[in-house]
Amino acid sequence: MTNPKGLLVTFEGNEGSGKSTQIELLHDKLQSLGRKVIKLREPGGTGLGELLRDILKTPKEGVVINPIAELLLMNASRAQLVHQMIRPALDRGDIVLIDRFFDSTIVYQGHGRSLDMGIVKKAIEIAVGNTIPNITYLLKIPVQVSEERRERRNSAKPGARDRFEENERTFFERINEGYEFLAESDPDRIKVIDAQMGIQSVHSKIWQSMERLL
Amino acid sequence: MTNPKGLLVTFEGNEGSGKSTQIELLHDKLQSLGRKVIKLREPGGTGLGELLRDILKTPKEGVVINPIAELLLMNASRAQLVHQMIRPALDRGDIVLIDRFFDSTIVYQGHGRSLDMGIVKKAIEIAVGNTIPNITYLLKIPVQVSEERRERRNSAKPGARDRFEENERTFFERINEGYEFLAESDPDRIKVIDAQMGIQSVHSKIWQSMERLL
Repeated sequence: MTNPKGLLVTFEGNEGSGKSTQIELLHDKLQSLGRKVIKLREPGGTGLGELLRDILKTPKEGVVINPIAELLLMNASRAQLVHQMIRPALDRGDIVLIDRFFDSTIVYQGHGRSLDMGIVKKAIEIAVGNTIPNITYLLKIPVQVSEERRERRNSAKPGARDRFEENERTFFERINEGYEFLAESDPDRIKVIDAQMGIQSVHSKIWQSMERLL
Repeated sequence: MTNPKGLLVTFEGNEGSGKSTQIELLHDKLQSLGRKVIKLREPGGTGLGELLRDILKTPKEGVVINPIAELLLMNASRAQLVHQMIRPALDRGDIVLIDRFFDSTIVYQGHGRSLDMGIVKKAIEIAVGNTIPNITYLLKIPVQVSEERRERRNSAKPGARDRFEENERTFFERINEGYEFLAESDPDRIKVIDAQMGIQSVHSKIWQSMERLL
């Protein structure tokens, strides 16, 4: 056990899979039961992380980011989050919910950008050491549904399309395949949930699983 | 040989050792001989790198950077510089002069911040691959001289003191020891030059060595 007192719970999935809604619902449920719980997101979650999130997500004139630099930036944000927020919370015995963690890097930078997986894993190891999630919920939706939900979100908020969303559909297909591969290789930690069910049904599934951990 | 056509020349040393003056002199000399030569600096040298340089060097309210995040940020800037500027220049057969490269990370993050050297070297390897300098000039000055020169520079330019300069003298003593250790371990690549000699004498020493390489 790498998190002897607290619990580290991470949420993964394509854009539009409903991660932030589910984190909100789980957070409120846990809090209503009197548990200490914090919500974080990646990249971001610290002063440094939010600066890096802006660099990583908002396209900027004259700023090119090659895949290796992207990998290292994601992990710089992560190292700060682990050190400044996650470890202290786990050591206090709190529950930490994060919107994306290192599985996103395996999938986006490894499968999506086609980086060497050995290099991806080395960078992650530098950033997280032995801070491994107790459980990971992978919210699964087809690429087409993700696309539709992103389109809807972006048409409601013009200019919201970020640097990752500028990729082709084949990029997002590789992301989905990467997530499937990951879930198969670590079924004890990664729970796949069909995110096309209604919001409350997804929440119930997550809660059933969380109750066994508490 | 990892740089079959061009030449990669790096400059190392404590603040105030005169690196930028010497790069300027060498640059002009090479250019006057008709060689194609570019000057770069670390962290920085690209659009992304200059954003990261600001984050790394300018203290900011609410932004804490732990040593592992610092290590990864330095190498993110470096990966972008290698990919966008250094490799294309070397492939064209140009001479590349850089103010600091990965030796600075070994010394500042490894010796200075006391990070595990295995982790430091892994991060560097991810960023640079097989892009190793043909020659490195280490401009050596005692810690006290470096301190005096920094003080003078900062009193001329108020607010110029950066995040690294906020460290204790023992930090800079570890930097100097780290550089010495590094030079002893790789004497073929790293040439130590006494930077307390006059500017022209240092330049002559560097030029003697460069002429043999050209």
